Amino acid sequence: MKIDILIKNGLILKFDKKPTLNNIAITDGKILEIGTNLEQKYKAKLIIDATEKIVMPGFVNTHSHVAMSYFKGLADDLPLQEWLTKHIWPVEEKFLSEEFVKDAAIHGCAEMIKNGITTFNDMYFFGDQTAGSVEKIGIRAVLGEGVLDFPVANYQNADEIFAYIRKMHDKYKKSELIDFAVAPHAIYTCGKENLIKSKDLALELGILLHIHLSETKQEVDDCIKKTGLRPVEYLDSLGFFEGDVVVAHAIWLDESEQNILAKNNSSIAINTSSNLKIASGFDSFKSYLEHGVNLSIGTDGVASNNNLSMLQEISLTAKLQKALNNDPTILPAKEMIQIATIGGAKALNKNNQIGSIEVGKKADIIIVDTDCIEAQPMYDPYSHLVYSLASEQIKDVIINGKIVMKNRKLVNIDENEIIEKAKYYQRKIMEFNHIK
Amino acid sequence: MKIDILIKNGLILKFDKKPTLNNIAITDGKILEIGTNLEQKYKAKLIIDATEKIVMPGFVNTHSHVAMSYFKGLADDLPLQEWLTKHIWPVEEKFLSEEFVKDAAIHGCAEMIKNGITTFNDMYFFGDQTAGSVEKIGIRAVLGEGVLDFPVANYQNADEIFAYIRKMHDKYKKSELIDFAVAPHAIYTCGKENLIKSKDLALELGILLHIHLSETKQEVDDCIKKTGLRPVEYLDSLGFFEGDVVVAHAIWLDESEQNILAKNNSSIAINTSSNLKIASGFDSFKSYLEHGVNLSIGTDGVASNNNLSMLQEISLTAKLQKALNNDPTILPAKEMIQIATIGGAKALNKNNQIGSIEVGKKADIIIVDTDCIEAQPMYDPYSHLVYSLASEQIKDVIINGKIVMKNRKLVNIDENEIIEKAKYYQRKIMEFNHIK
Repeated sequence: MKIDILIKNGLILKFDKKPTLNNIAITDGKILEIGTNLEQKYKAKLIIDATEKIVMPGFVNTHSHVAMSYFKGLADDLPLQEWLTKHIWPVEEKFLSEEFVKDAAIHGCAEMIKNGITTFNDMYFFGDQTAGSVEKIGIRAVLGEGVLDFPVANYQNADEIFAYIRKMHDKYKKSELIDFAVAPHAIYTCGKENLIKSKDLALELGILLHIHLSETKQEVDDCIKKTGLRPVEYLDSLGFFEGDVVVAHAIWLDESEQNILAKNNSSIAINTSSNLKIASGFDSFKSYLEHGVNLSIGTDGVASNNNLSMLQEISLTAKLQKALNNDPTILPAKEMIQIATIGGAKALNKNNQIGSIEVGKKADIIIVDTDCIEAQPMYDPYSHLVYSLASEQIKDVIINGKIVMKNRKLVNIDENEIIEKAKYYQRKIMEFNHIK
Repeated sequence: MKIDILIKNGLILKFDKKPTLNNIAITDGKILEIGTNLEQKYKAKLIIDATEKIVMPGFVNTHSHVAMSYFKGLADDLPLQEWLTKHIWPVEEKFLSEEFVKDAAIHGCAEMIKNGITTFNDMYFFGDQTAGSVEKIGIRAVLGEGVLDFPVANYQNADEIFAYIRKMHDKYKKSELIDFAVAPHAIYTCGKENLIKSKDLALELGILLHIHLSETKQEVDDCIKKTGLRPVEYLDSLGFFEGDVVVAHAIWLDESEQNILAKNNSSIAINTSSNLKIASGFDSFKSYLEHGVNLSIGTDGVASNNNLSMLQEISLTAKLQKALNNDPTILPAKEMIQIATIGGAKALNKNNQIGSIEVGKKADIIIVDTDCIEAQPMYDPYSHLVYSLASEQIKDVIINGKIVMKNRKLVNIDENEIIEKAKYYQRKIMEFNHIK
């Protein structure tokens, strides 16, 4: 039988058993078989020799703003309000357009793949343009169109955005790679009416709700002052958690809020780098785990993070949690890798399709080199992934059964073209900002 | 005039002015000139085109255990005592030998260079063997021979170690790359007598003192109980800070201790990854900075960290400090880069020779690629180094005027040989540990 890809001799990370050397047959976008002697059984169009390599599910990044690529490192080490109002919002107001989003999104998607991300859950504007870039590069995405009470991008009001989401949902419903989602920006930018409309639309279309929540203490205090309820309680009072919900950040939750999320199978996208860097704060996730809240990992946008390395994100999160809890055993390496893969898949209600290496699942797989000084010796691949390795070692990326990065070179796009475009926008943004 | 190396068209990070495109002429181990038109003026044996690259001083890693390479990832996510007594000490007891240290040290040195480290300040045993590996690979090092009250490695007592340090100091005194140092392990493994002898020897030979200090709260509590003094006060009462001192970790200091360090020009080696991962704790460094304590960055050994990425370490440290102080402006990117370079050089009392790019200083220089998707666009090279880039982008490393890594390939050693040796020791350690 002819198949698309055969991965041979890789150290395969299946979460239900010990890492084992094995082969994977991939065809029609899916994992057809995992086993020995597959090279005899199948004739593959592409054979990837994964000797001395880890073969694992791709990372699922559950909170991003992919088209903010060109704002990476534009302004740092500043108070949040100054950063937003004096730097980010002015350039967004000036530059945000369909063309800009298309270009910036392909840059962001390229950077995601370089970091082993095979699916991302985005929140931004002009999702149709992002979708075009997503399909071009071949990554999997859930594209949350931002909903706010005031005019943004090319929308005059939230109702226009809801109409747009309906249209996009319809346009991409047969896409193998793209889902749309409703992304009310936050409880401080969306009033009750638009939060409820967002939720109703998501339920009607059976799509995800994606919201920033409890990112700062200020947000929590303001919510209590205004509604008498904490943010999760407030959203719960609106029936917000009836569908599939990802709340991003969520570092200021009390136990009752954790209970609400757990009870509703809602998920948290942890964004440790961004939270620390902007000094939004941090929280121990021990109680979240004990309450059974599903955790996943987000990178946030590169304007605040400023990179898309999931390996850095899980390393940072694991280490910080150990210190915060005065307990080096919390969030061990294997659990962190699960949170960043199947945890993310669960958050997006896609754990039947992606997030682990299983026969019948979509082939979203990354291959990590261990035949290098940084990875040797290796006693435990999970430990190395979380504590020792970096994206440099992620060599090949397969998404939906197609190879999109081979030996760190992107397959479907010209990297130099992307770099030149970034430089072009950089010049324009610097001119606008009068940076000399 | 003939010179060794010409670096042309690089974005040069000199801390006293804005990053500027320029050329650097290097000869006889030193920076001869920085300026335009150097290509016409000098005939270089090697020309490095640094177009679209950052040219900066190499990182100075002020706390490491370079020969612990083969214990990387051997045991993680464990309580400190279990990790030490059940995993690290047994394998050290079994395997530590001259041969082992020589092999493990070259692995560690190779990994340091891959991470842009041009000088490291080590603490371990069998320094003569480490020195051999250091010279072979061409890195700069201060080799602190560990002093403990009980027999270790091949020493029966501390006096043997002091004699060894004298011998090594003499043997390597003409070395361009190597200094020896006295490294009393900690106040809980060295009694008053050996701490004073360590200090006296360091003062006599004019070499560095390097000690673990106030890494855990337990250590502080025990010290107070035993001596009535906090650790820094206790060492001060012994005259320990009269010479050049690097204290590693130091996350449990009060203000009076910070004052003592500042007054004595003693330096701290910050080891954030290790402290978080083992759950030793963390401290805000705001007060340290206000008291004028010189800060530098250490990676600690790979048995606890588990990598040698200085970029990861400065990124983590900067972000954590912002969150701890609820202040995103603390430790801005340029300051972090200075801490990791000239701060480290100051800690080792070598800031007249290394740590910045200045005419007359040793040419310890790293070249970082920015012509890649992860680094584009680029508004500020300092921001990118701290928040966006990883060691993957460190392409070339020059130490003492000689190129030791070219386009991420080590020049003076065979990387495959090092990898094979690591696998050999891994098998032996796994056999010993009955890891299946």
